[in-house]
Amino acid sequence: MRTYHSQEGCPVARTLNVVGERWTILILRDLVTGRSGKYQDLLRSLRGIAPSLLAKRLKHLEAQGVLQRFFYSEHPPRAEYRLTTKGRELGPLVRAMADWGSKYKLDGETALARPARRRGL
Amino acid sequence: MRTYHSQEGCPVARTLNVVGERWTILILRDLVTGRSGKYQDLLRSLRGIAPSLLAKRLKHLEAQGVLQRFFYSEHPPRAEYRLTTKGRELGPLVRAMADWGSKYKLDGETALARPARRRGL
Repeated sequence: MRTYHSQEGCPVARTLNVVGERWTILILRDLVTGRSGKYQDLLRSLRGIAPSLLAKRLKHLEAQGVLQRFFYSEHPPRAEYRLTTKGRELGPLVRAMADWGSKYKLDGETALARPARRRGL
Repeated sequence: MRTYHSQEGCPVARTLNVVGERWTILILRDLVTGRSGKYQDLLRSLRGIAPSLLAKRLKHLEAQGVLQRFFYSEHPPRAEYRLTTKGRELGPLVRAMADWGSKYKLDGETALARPARRRGL
């Protein structure tokens, strides 16, 4: 986890230290929008992420108090992740990303003419 | 620039393809909060960033229509970056990051008891 050591005291950098790594916002997207937080479902949703990297990201979010892990099966062990209150409060950030990405669908172009496809956000 | 190829159609991923790389949000923070967009000032503000990496990030944001480059000196050439309308509309995203980072100052702890230090946001 590479943090922004030079930006101490900046609240934006503090947030980036928690959610700034590649894939993390997409994990939060799934949870904020009420999709499944089961490990296997996250792995399927984030096509292309290495299983070890997903596990690492989830561990970091759990350590930061953003997610909690539950086991819904013991044999074999199957984990599910849920947002804590602290994690749910990242909702506005994820939604701000969705809003901007819906408005600017193509590079340099505003997509206001077409209804925004929001995919649950 | 590593994009999220597997997430086509997702507006969150689309935004991340523009602003998701390390340091980019901190560049936007400076511009959204009205700090100097001069290359030398950005380099000073983002202590620890390599000059070549800052140049690369600025080039990407310019190519994506988020920033425009102006020259305020010709000899020697000195560039300044300003947000476009598309770039200014990333303000809510930067502010959502500042809000969350102000609320959760320390890992796992809410800082509501103390007045939030916002540094201009």
